[in-house]
Amino acid sequence: MNKQFSILNGNLIPSSEATIPISDKGYFFDFAVYDSLKIIQGKLFFPEFHIDRLLFSADQIGLKHHFDKKQIIKWINLLVEKNNLANYSIRTILIGDPDNGKQPKLYIFPVTGITYAPNECYSKGIKTISCVGQRRFPQAKTVDLLLAYTAKRTAKQADAKEVLMVDYDGFICEGGSSNFLAIQGDKLITPPREKCLEGITKKIILEIAKNNFEIIEKDILLTDLKNYDEFFITSTLKNVMPIRQIDDLVVTDKFPQTKKIMKLYKDYYTKNILNN
Amino acid sequence: MNKQFSILNGNLIPSSEATIPISDKGYFFDFAVYDSLKIIQGKLFFPEFHIDRLLFSADQIGLKHHFDKKQIIKWINLLVEKNNLANYSIRTILIGDPDNGKQPKLYIFPVTGITYAPNECYSKGIKTISCVGQRRFPQAKTVDLLLAYTAKRTAKQADAKEVLMVDYDGFICEGGSSNFLAIQGDKLITPPREKCLEGITKKIILEIAKNNFEIIEKDILLTDLKNYDEFFITSTLKNVMPIRQIDDLVVTDKFPQTKKIMKLYKDYYTKNILNN
Repeated sequence: MNKQFSILNGNLIPSSEATIPISDKGYFFDFAVYDSLKIIQGKLFFPEFHIDRLLFSADQIGLKHHFDKKQIIKWINLLVEKNNLANYSIRTILIGDPDNGKQPKLYIFPVTGITYAPNECYSKGIKTISCVGQRRFPQAKTVDLLLAYTAKRTAKQADAKEVLMVDYDGFICEGGSSNFLAIQGDKLITPPREKCLEGITKKIILEIAKNNFEIIEKDILLTDLKNYDEFFITSTLKNVMPIRQIDDLVVTDKFPQTKKIMKLYKDYYTKNILNN
Repeated sequence: MNKQFSILNGNLIPSSEATIPISDKGYFFDFAVYDSLKIIQGKLFFPEFHIDRLLFSADQIGLKHHFDKKQIIKWINLLVEKNNLANYSIRTILIGDPDNGKQPKLYIFPVTGITYAPNECYSKGIKTISCVGQRRFPQAKTVDLLLAYTAKRTAKQADAKEVLMVDYDGFICEGGSSNFLAIQGDKLITPPREKCLEGITKKIILEIAKNNFEIIEKDILLTDLKNYDEFFITSTLKNVMPIRQIDDLVVTDKFPQTKKIMKLYKDYYTKNILNN
C-alpha cells in the first residue's frame, strides 16, 4: 500500500508536502468541513453521497468555494489509483478563508487502513455511555471536533465502544462517530434530522428497512429507554452494530429486530457494493 | 516589522516552515490549546498570566506535555527579539498527540499588528448581540473555535462589535472574544468562573476595582438585563469597553460607573505597563 500522494486543489502532491501554515486562519477557527470515505476492494463506497454531504456541510457553515462534485470525485479516484489503495480510508478537508481574500483549500489524502470491530460487538452488542453536549451545526461534518474527541476518550476509559451524545434537553441525538437508532415493535425510530449528521449507512438502512419497519423520526429521551425494545448504531466503518448497554443500564441482550436489519444490510452490501 | 521567524518546540525556524501536516490528528480533533499575547512598545503584556493560562487550558482538556512556563516565556522573548516586534500580537499553540506516541508540538509565531477600536466605542458604548451556545471547556482556550467564529461573524453582519454567548439556561457567560461584566449600584457582577474564560484584563479589573466596588460572582440572565445599570466587556485588545445595546434593547447610553473603571484601568496600565 502506497500512501505517498495527496491532493491539494486538484493537484497531486507528495504527502510530505500536504501541510498547512500554523497561522492558517480558516483551520485555526475551525472554519473547515470534512468527510471520510472508505475504499473496499479498490472501490469507492458511495462517493456521491459523501461529496454531496461535504458540500452540504460547507453550505451549512457558510463556507464559500468553487469546487464541484464531479471534479472532486475525479480527484479522489486519481488518488486511489496513484496510491494503489485497496482497502483504505481517505479524507477530504475543505478549509475556508475567513477573510474571503484567498481561495479555499481542498485536501484529499489517505488516512488509515480499514480495521473491523471484533465479531462479539455484533453478536453480543456493545456497551455505550451517554455524554451531554450539542454540536454547533449538527447536520454538518465540521472539524469542530473537541467535543466528539473528548467524549469518545471518556467512553474508551469506561471500556465502552461508543458514546451517545445527549442534547441539553435530554434527547439522544447521535453517537460520537455514528448514528443512533431505536426499535419499538415494528417501528424504527430515528432522531429528528436537524439534530444529527445524516450518515450514509443510516440513509441506506432507512431505505432498505422501509418494507419491514415503519420509519418514525422523533426525539428519544435518555430517561425513557425502557419504552424501547432495541437500539443500534450505524457508521461507515461499523455498519450496523447492536447496543447491549447504555451507561449502567443493560437495555437488552437480545436484538432479533436489529439482527433482521443487519441481515438486510449485509445482503444489500454484498449485492450492491462487493459484486458491483 | 520583521515576521520571518517562528518557534517550534523551542527551535527558531523560518515562518514559512511553521507548518503542520494536514493529517495531524491532534489539530484535526481540536486537541489543542492556545493563547495570544500582546507586545506593547516592545514589552510583553503579562506573559506569566498568559502562559499560566495556556498550561491550565492544556490541563483542562487532558493534554499532556513536557513544556514549562519559564522555558516558554524565554522562547517568546527570543521570538520578540529576533523579529524585532514593537507593537504586535503573537500566538502560542500547543497541539496534543491523541495517540500518546509522539511529543506534543508547541508553536509560537507573530500574528498581527495591534489595531485599536475607534474612540467612539469607548465614548458611546458598543452594540452587541446575544447568541446561544456553550463551549465544551469554558475555562480553557481551545482551538475548538467554530462557535465563536460563526457567532462573531453573525455579530459583524448585524453591525455589532461583539457577541454575548448565552448558555442553554439563558445566562450570559462571556463575549465571543472578551469577558462580560455588569454593574448594579456599587456592585460589580461577573459570571461564575466555571462558565467563562478567565481573561487577563478582567483579572486585573477585579483586583484594582475591589476598593470601589463589591465584587460578586453570579449568573446574569439575558431576560433580566433591566435589573442592572451598566454592562461592559474586557479583553487584551479592547481593554474596558462599555455596552450601549444588547440585541434590540438599548440598555444604557450613560455609564458613569464603567467610566470609573476605565479610568482605574488606564491609570494602572500607564503606571504598570507603559512606564515599567
